[in-house]
Amino acid sequence: MDQPRNTVVAIIGLGLLGASLGMALRGGAFRRTGWTRRESIRRWAVDCDVLDECEDSLEEVLGKADLTILALPLPEIERYLKEYAHCFRPGSVVSDIGSCKSGVMRAAEALKPFGVHFVGGHPMAGTEKSGPESAFPTLYRNADVFVCPGGDSPEEAVELVERLWRSVGTKTSRISAERHDDLVAHTSHVLHILASALALSILDAPDEELRLERFRGCATGFRDTSRIASSSPLMWREIIENNRDAVLVAMRDFDRRYEAYRRMIEAGDFDSFEREFAHGKLLRDSWLEYKSRKRE
Amino acid sequence: MDQPRNTVVAIIGLGLLGASLGMALRGGAFRRTGWTRRESIRRWAVDCDVLDECEDSLEEVLGKADLTILALPLPEIERYLKEYAHCFRPGSVVSDIGSCKSGVMRAAEALKPFGVHFVGGHPMAGTEKSGPESAFPTLYRNADVFVCPGGDSPEEAVELVERLWRSVGTKTSRISAERHDDLVAHTSHVLHILASALALSILDAPDEELRLERFRGCATGFRDTSRIASSSPLMWREIIENNRDAVLVAMRDFDRRYEAYRRMIEAGDFDSFEREFAHGKLLRDSWLEYKSRKRE
Repeated sequence: MDQPRNTVVAIIGLGLLGASLGMALRGGAFRRTGWTRRESIRRWAVDCDVLDECEDSLEEVLGKADLTILALPLPEIERYLKEYAHCFRPGSVVSDIGSCKSGVMRAAEALKPFGVHFVGGHPMAGTEKSGPESAFPTLYRNADVFVCPGGDSPEEAVELVERLWRSVGTKTSRISAERHDDLVAHTSHVLHILASALALSILDAPDEELRLERFRGCATGFRDTSRIASSSPLMWREIIENNRDAVLVAMRDFDRRYEAYRRMIEAGDFDSFEREFAHGKLLRDSWLEYKSRKRE
Repeated sequence: MDQPRNTVVAIIGLGLLGASLGMALRGGAFRRTGWTRRESIRRWAVDCDVLDECEDSLEEVLGKADLTILALPLPEIERYLKEYAHCFRPGSVVSDIGSCKSGVMRAAEALKPFGVHFVGGHPMAGTEKSGPESAFPTLYRNADVFVCPGGDSPEEAVELVERLWRSVGTKTSRISAERHDDLVAHTSHVLHILASALALSILDAPDEELRLERFRGCATGFRDTSRIASSSPLMWREIIENNRDAVLVAMRDFDRRYEAYRRMIEAGDFDSFEREFAHGKLLRDSWLEYKSRKRE
């Protein structure tokens, strides 16, 4: 595992995240193989240099990879870990890109009897689109990637996963599965609920005339605030179902700020409103600066 | 007023909206004059062809314009209408770019004794930035512009305002001030409260370690959902203060959708969650299509 030039990485699933990872690894230190359900996409992946090679047999791919990345929907990651546990090469490392980590880490227990090491992964990257046709090689550039070592992951296994992600321009941080799930409930999952509720509250008008008027009244503020409401309903159902308790906590944290604004507006206390809004602006502007510093 | 090539438009205030309007009108049918408080910005506007000419005296500008656009903060629009009512050329038309229209229309009553016609205007365009340094000539391209005729605005006055906005690539619609204010409370004002509450609930962490972790956990979803939280606190205080009742109604409309999501998540009813999310996606995607159709 120390000489990545000889390391074979298998990407299982070639949707937005899997295909973009293949593209990002192009010309790098890893030999790329992989598999996806549709034969036409497997052919496309090799023809378009998304992968160096692609097998028709999932078992064959899993049996020869040093590092397997399960780039699948959350329930599929858990299912593959259980159903194909015996197919991974003993001593190899398995990781994933799932948006929640606690359930995945539990499912990965199935690998232990086979001497296969699991290290959870979650790149904070994506768009509202999905499928291989939405993939692009710079999706991961400057992204943060969370790496969740299992209780007994060997250090080399964790480092291999980190090396893969750093090689595509990301910054990795180690975190426990529980802390990760609470974190992304706040920074990602709750945003999708808000964006969708917002889109519905504006555009789901009782009559066509009002709906057209609302269409006219929406501009770039709406476009950006609601962008992720155009994400996959199935994928977000699965993520929020998987991380339900943490999402409900993150919703309550949002509620406190939102209700504070409501009280200020009702009371006509616009000095407090302005101060609070300035505080939010300061924090967001600091975050933008943090992100741009990383880019240097 | 029928031959716009001879028409003098005065832009009062050269912030993001005023300066961008001057840039957008460049090479067009209107002769551009204007005024802004800072002398250095007046000079910049002429040097950089934002305006054809710029007077040092506000009164002089108002006295010779056929159409004056008050591109000022909301309280300033109302103040200028009252304090300078006697300065506008009798028979000329005055309009504005304010985000709320009811208060402005009331303030514009002050123009009547002087035979000056007021037609409210609100271009649905902007960014989270402000000031002349943020201006750009394509800000208004494809934007919707709401035009609010006063009770006794002559048809030619309304058409002059519409002609100005159409000449910079926007689509105009007439609407009453009350209906406008209710509309933008939903499509714009409430979004700023949500974006700010969201930024605060994520980034205002009790300790530095958690704040840095939250910084890492925020990606493009957060960037876009919260973009308008970086807007001017003073400007948004003024807008929401001006449109308080309609904003509180729009918040309650949002609440209904948000609380419905919470109930589904609490009850574990993820089939309903997925159906509702798909409905929001469908509506937002229709809006995107409406916006792209307009661009053709």
